[in-house]
Amino acid sequence: MTPALVTLTTDFGAQSPYVAAMKGVILSIAPQVRLVDLTHGIAPQDIRQAALALADTVPLFPKGSIHVAVIDPGVGTQRRIVCANIEGRYLIAPDNGLLSLLAEQAPPQQIVSATEPRFWRPQVSATFHGRDIMAPLAGHLAQGVPLHALGDSLASLVMLDWPRPDVGPRRITGEVLSIDSFGNLITNITADVLTRGGIGLAGARGNDPNDRALEIEDDAGSQSTPGAKIRVHTGRGRVAPLVRTYGQSPDGSLVALCGSNGRLELAIVSGNAAVELQVNVGHPVKVVW
Amino acid sequence: MTPALVTLTTDFGAQSPYVAAMKGVILSIAPQVRLVDLTHGIAPQDIRQAALALADTVPLFPKGSIHVAVIDPGVGTQRRIVCANIEGRYLIAPDNGLLSLLAEQAPPQQIVSATEPRFWRPQVSATFHGRDIMAPLAGHLAQGVPLHALGDSLASLVMLDWPRPDVGPRRITGEVLSIDSFGNLITNITADVLTRGGIGLAGARGNDPNDRALEIEDDAGSQSTPGAKIRVHTGRGRVAPLVRTYGQSPDGSLVALCGSNGRLELAIVSGNAAVELQVNVGHPVKVVW
Amino acid sequence: MTPALVTLTTDFGAQSPYVAAMKGVILSIAPQVRLVDLTHGIAPQDIRQAALALADTVPLFPKGSIHVAVIDPGVGTQRRIVCANIEGRYLIAPDNGLLSLLAEQAPPQQIVSATEPRFWRPQVSATFHGRDIMAPLAGHLAQGVPLHALGDSLASLVMLDWPRPDVGPRRITGEVLSIDSFGNLITNITADVLTRGGIGLAGARGNDPNDRALEIEDDAGSQSTPGAKIRVHTGRGRVAPLVRTYGQSPDGSLVALCGSNGRLELAIVSGNAAVELQVNVGHPVKVVW
Repeated sequence: MTPALVTLTTDFGAQSPYVAAMKGVILSIAPQVRLVDLTHGIAPQDIRQAALALADTVPLFPKGSIHVAVIDPGVGTQRRIVCANIEGRYLIAPDNGLLSLLAEQAPPQQIVSATEPRFWRPQVSATFHGRDIMAPLAGHLAQGVPLHALGDSLASLVMLDWPRPDVGPRRITGEVLSIDSFGNLITNITADVLTRGGIGLAGARGNDPNDRALEIEDDAGSQSTPGAKIRVHTGRGRVAPLVRTYGQSPDGSLVALCGSNGRLELAIVSGNAAVELQVNVGHPVKVVW
Repeated sequence: MTPALVTLTTDFGAQSPYVAAMKGVILSIAPQVRLVDLTHGIAPQDIRQAALALADTVPLFPKGSIHVAVIDPGVGTQRRIVCANIEGRYLIAPDNGLLSLLAEQAPPQQIVSATEPRFWRPQVSATFHGRDIMAPLAGHLAQGVPLHALGDSLASLVMLDWPRPDVGPRRITGEVLSIDSFGNLITNITADVLTRGGIGLAGARGNDPNDRALEIEDDAGSQSTPGAKIRVHTGRGRVAPLVRTYGQSPDGSLVALCGSNGRLELAIVSGNAAVELQVNVGHPVKVVW
Repeated sequence: MTPALVTLTTDFGAQSPYVAAMKGVILSIAPQVRLVDLTHGIAPQDIRQAALALADTVPLFPKGSIHVAVIDPGVGTQRRIVCANIEGRYLIAPDNGLLSLLAEQAPPQQIVSATEPRFWRPQVSATFHGRDIMAPLAGHLAQGVPLHALGDSLASLVMLDWPRPDVGPRRITGEVLSIDSFGNLITNITADVLTRGGIGLAGARGNDPNDRALEIEDDAGSQSTPGAKIRVHTGRGRVAPLVRTYGQSPDGSLVALCGSNGRLELAIVSGNAAVELQVNVGHPVKVVW
């Protein structure tokens, strides 16, 4: 039998001994577990960024895998710790919205409030439930303890108020949801939303990169370019063709594309769009056409 | 049988190919080993920070696990490389004090000076004993070579001159020992020392957060607040209640609490105390009451 | 049988969920695989830095191990993805020179262009072939699919135009190839080149650190010091003895040594040579004697 797989997602920073402490606790309970760092680079207490990272990566892991997420500003207060089965994968997290994007993609098959202290460390600190409650829960799940033994059943999870794109006639308003390590701006406008909005994505999907152009202009822009326009409020007029991939445009040019997770992205080829456009998470993105 | 577990602690930075080189050498000798990064974020040559990380995390790993620590400013000089059994866990490190806090917590059961070159790489560089001596030692231990085969017995380890809190009548003087990734200030004042000093920690330990207050004031502070006071030399007067957990105080407030490793910590709720107070490792912390 | 070992090298940054996405895909195909991060800290799109990291570390891993490298500025264009057997280890990478330093050290035994889509993910994005093509290839190799099944045979790999040291009479001109996490300057002048140039390296190799001295002076330097001189164009005259290891020289002194990978390095003892000398990759280094 393949030993259990446990991933960890935290805002501790990868080099924090707090991450190692959780690993030690898990391995002391389930010595054969294989550990994978999902990410420890979540900005401190940024539940939304973590929810996005979980939604984009957990479904790629095998069924039966166990995923612990510790972004926990409410540690020591009355917030619940939950264990959930979502599409055959086990999630362990504080019930603060961390799992809400995953739960939107696929409704949880089972949710439990982790109320059984016999599956925790004997002494529980007030400030580090990742080590003292969530890591032991992962260890016991990996050892074969069934989900329902960990506590009382719950009907639903706390859901984040996730920013939705606003789709109007010939206009979609969204925002920058996250910025990746290359400085690419990932928006909450998905390929599905663009398609429903009437924007053909054949080019963006890989057949002919030239058959469609999105464009970017600033607020003051009065260009009447044909085709769709994405208006990014950067204070500078920029026009971005909708491309299939980065390699099609010259270095330094701003492009829009449907990224690998199905979201509209803005990127500067061989550059850093976040830095060069001075755009942060939450920045509005308007597509008009 | 569960394959051996080897953790690595270095000051190389996680992304250094030097870390990967050590992993390659270990896996070439013991292909079934499972590797865990304890931390590679130790500040260059900061033996004290690494000793603290090892003391806080190694005891959480299973007995039989192997832990390699390479913070090695004396590489290539006459400093020893040691292998030690501390509470059933195996430690491999230069004998420069890295293991001294662990060895204070529990006296080593066996110490060996790694003098047997047949357990090293055939060619040993002058600058990278982590790859050429310590990684192979871990590989051979993982393969079942007994500790005593690795070299000559030693009676004791090099011990760091660790800063101790100074406990006087109604006064404890300590210092900031390390700063975690959230900017929390971890001091060398332990819960035990506070208790012996006569400060009740019922509140800090979780029963009633309101029954006790520690306070912080600056040198010029002339407040005569009742209860214990922690005086932090920040040049600004600040008062910190002793809390059980972060969630009990409003964002931005300075709090003192007994952290998850049993040490007195100073934190700014949802903020970064090290940055906001401009405090570094070694900063004095005085508790008066 | 020991489960397959797969290492990952990318320019994503260690904390990128893109790394986790690749791991999820590999483990979904080959659940028993053990994953090792070689490095994710390659500077964005720096193929040369990655080629160097691969050449220095892959040969340390066991035969049969699988190594995926995703530094892929040409993703989505016509560049090939290749799988190669080099000295019994399997490499998977875009064919953009990433493997060229490894292939110089030992000619590949077999090269395949990864043209068989049945070993890819069913849907391939235009921008993330690491997740959609290279990770699945690693998973299938780990499951025992033979190299030749992955696509058409290739005769050779794209080779980088690697900067070679210029060896003249009593003079070697090289350059800084990379800077490690301690700020040490790693040059393209190898111990072999120095030896062929007539510089005795007995001292540098470990027997007598005092029998030989290399020296550094700036362009304007008119010192007529005996022995070899390394001239670094820093605009400041500095003289560096050739040492065997860092511990032999006082803190703050500039030294030259043959580093653990057989390359001439310049270092400031207990300091950061790159920062203090303000030297970047590509900086010329001249050895004259």
